[in-house]
Amino acid sequence: MTDYSRFLSRAAAGMQASAIRRMGALTAGRAGVISFAPGNPAPETFPWEAFADIAAGLLSGRDGGTLQYGPTRGFKPLLDALVEIQRDRQIRCDLPDLVVTTGSQQGLDLVGRVLVDPGDVVLVELPTYVGAIGAFHNVRASLVGVRQQADGIDLDDLERVTVRLTREGRRIRFLYVVPNFQNPTGLLIARDKRLRLLEWAARHDLMIVEDDPYGEVFFEDVTSSNDTRPIKADDADGRVVYLSTFSKTLAPGFRVAWIVAPAQLASRFELAKQAADLCTGALDQRIVHACCARGVLLRQGPLLRRHYQAKRDAIVAGLRQQLGDQLQWPTPRGGFFLWATLPADIDADAMIEQALERGVVYVPGSAFFVDEGGRSTMRLSFSAPPIPQIAEGVARLAAAIREALSAQPLAGRRAE
Amino acid sequence: MTDYSRFLSRAAAGMQASAIRRMGALTAGRAGVISFAPGNPAPETFPWEAFADIAAGLLSGRDGGTLQYGPTRGFKPLLDALVEIQRDRQIRCDLPDLVVTTGSQQGLDLVGRVLVDPGDVVLVELPTYVGAIGAFHNVRASLVGVRQQADGIDLDDLERVTVRLTREGRRIRFLYVVPNFQNPTGLLIARDKRLRLLEWAARHDLMIVEDDPYGEVFFEDVTSSNDTRPIKADDADGRVVYLSTFSKTLAPGFRVAWIVAPAQLASRFELAKQAADLCTGALDQRIVHACCARGVLLRQGPLLRRHYQAKRDAIVAGLRQQLGDQLQWPTPRGGFFLWATLPADIDADAMIEQALERGVVYVPGSAFFVDEGGRSTMRLSFSAPPIPQIAEGVARLAAAIREALSAQPLAGRRAE
Repeated sequence: MTDYSRFLSRAAAGMQASAIRRMGALTAGRAGVISFAPGNPAPETFPWEAFADIAAGLLSGRDGGTLQYGPTRGFKPLLDALVEIQRDRQIRCDLPDLVVTTGSQQGLDLVGRVLVDPGDVVLVELPTYVGAIGAFHNVRASLVGVRQQADGIDLDDLERVTVRLTREGRRIRFLYVVPNFQNPTGLLIARDKRLRLLEWAARHDLMIVEDDPYGEVFFEDVTSSNDTRPIKADDADGRVVYLSTFSKTLAPGFRVAWIVAPAQLASRFELAKQAADLCTGALDQRIVHACCARGVLLRQGPLLRRHYQAKRDAIVAGLRQQLGDQLQWPTPRGGFFLWATLPADIDADAMIEQALERGVVYVPGSAFFVDEGGRSTMRLSFSAPPIPQIAEGVARLAAAIREALSAQPLAGRRAE
Repeated sequence: MTDYSRFLSRAAAGMQASAIRRMGALTAGRAGVISFAPGNPAPETFPWEAFADIAAGLLSGRDGGTLQYGPTRGFKPLLDALVEIQRDRQIRCDLPDLVVTTGSQQGLDLVGRVLVDPGDVVLVELPTYVGAIGAFHNVRASLVGVRQQADGIDLDDLERVTVRLTREGRRIRFLYVVPNFQNPTGLLIARDKRLRLLEWAARHDLMIVEDDPYGEVFFEDVTSSNDTRPIKADDADGRVVYLSTFSKTLAPGFRVAWIVAPAQLASRFELAKQAADLCTGALDQRIVHACCARGVLLRQGPLLRRHYQAKRDAIVAGLRQQLGDQLQWPTPRGGFFLWATLPADIDADAMIEQALERGVVYVPGSAFFVDEGGRSTMRLSFSAPPIPQIAEGVARLAAAIREALSAQPLAGRRAE
């Protein structure tokens, strides 16, 4: 038997590979390629000594729970620590509101499964995180995009889209947003817009799913923690499902993240998780908990902000110097990503081969759009490469772009 | 806002808590309760020293990959090791057939999502593993049970059910089986039946999902590795999706398991996993891989067989002595579970309160049935409690059962 397509569910028949992971596969075989593709944290920021020390303690302790099945909600001391972390982010929550997830990707998956029926509309920013597209796509949501401005989501467009879809009889379930240093644009939603999003949700009786992996990584030269105050912090009405993670502040290899939601929904996320993977890794949760309890997490904050700000400076300086005339980008105020717009006649998807030949890779922007847009955009992750590599990577990218530009037919160039 | 039911998907509205996890919650608050409820491996069998040594090496090595995002398919050296493990189980497979999963529960979830549309029929043994019921239920499968005999699934009933459903125009997707020391009955499917299951699948053009967590834990007094040869080993036609795990042989806290499937399906499982949790924990996978590479896993086999066989002996001896007249059970030839049938007028669900008062807990058998059956059955997991606790737990159970029997109305007793 060689063809199994008759056995595939409708969801499976429509599944597509994430562009980020495809880029990873493309570069896997090529030595020396500088990658601006995955949003990987820099391993040199991981608190290795603390991890080693904590793991040694846990694995010599002979507490069976360290390696046993655990409660689906999460390791109780970690849940207690999460209440405190949420409080530091101005979000009041209690244990019934919390669920530990196996990475925030699982959080998105659980959100999709608990809140979406096939054909339901999920509103997303244009562009938006590919992992969210994948998770919502796999529960057969219909994804509809809302434009963004320099200060985040375009509220007029949001209202327009909401009214139009409602008039068409479509069932909208929620708006998915990444307010802090969005993946992929790096944009920050302005404070007043956050409050108006809550008004929008109440007006239309909808939910907001707020994904906040990067809130701690604000760049102190131009941003403060006031700017990253979560939407959830002002959610008096219980309309926000909030997701965050230790993947960017400790390490992604642990797969420990969490959801804060109204208790009634949290208990559904728990049930969905029970059938999805029973529980998040016991050792991982205990290492992460110890990092919270010992102050390791707290010490990471300033270190990460300095580390990634220096890398942001490096990529912006390189781009200015090499591609100031060809590229446009908003300067990232935090997070891992710089979002670049090429001249309109350059197709970032088509250019990937030239870039790979030059020894550099990025994620073509179209991957982040749910409306076929973004052909001349790219996401450059500056989080992982060391600073000298960032400079060299930008030089290679500049060469690829110049090559692409010179290869344009003259007619096309003139029309520009 | 206090009522979120209007926001729930149809799948979420129907989600139910696993009975095993409910039993865990029931006992959590009570000190001194002896639990035959969860199928937890015994922590004293975990190779703690090897784990500690391996983790120390990994966390001092400063290889960023140890704590980074990884490929969705799994850590490449672990995948290579899995090819060898499968070969030892007489299953030939190659890398395109393999996907690492975050526990076998994720494997079941991925199977459901890739192979099942809402309303499709999944055939299961009566009774069957609750985690599979949960995973398939959450993709809105219609679960239909097939009877079991002392040597496993009843092939006549399977044929009858298949023909009836087909005649009714129902779309059957696959049969889910746990051939080795089934959860919950502990039964083993006979060799010739395994081959006839493959014939059944070919005849009806259906798939088989073979879940094999316990195959290594056969009791050498009455069983050999020949008896546990997987169905997949004889699957020339590519009709079997095979799942297994390190949860019982190393430790469940790592959440590392795997799927072997025809390559075309494996690539769909990979896509589904990508949106479900991106990748399985990096540190967990590396620890497990090192256990394979260093022979730790291999040394576990005989140790586990001896350990659980001694516990099987303890529970059987206790039951014979205390409850030989009241209970019936097939003697487990491997695995973690003893399946007991009470006198017909005892309801194992109703008796749980009495058992808890006596300081013992089990999982009522009805949780494992998809047809409302099994009211007078119970699953006793003998894997976790130390042997003296097993004896004491059986004594408490006997007291609870005698109490329940004496509380029966006389009419009911006489009718028996």
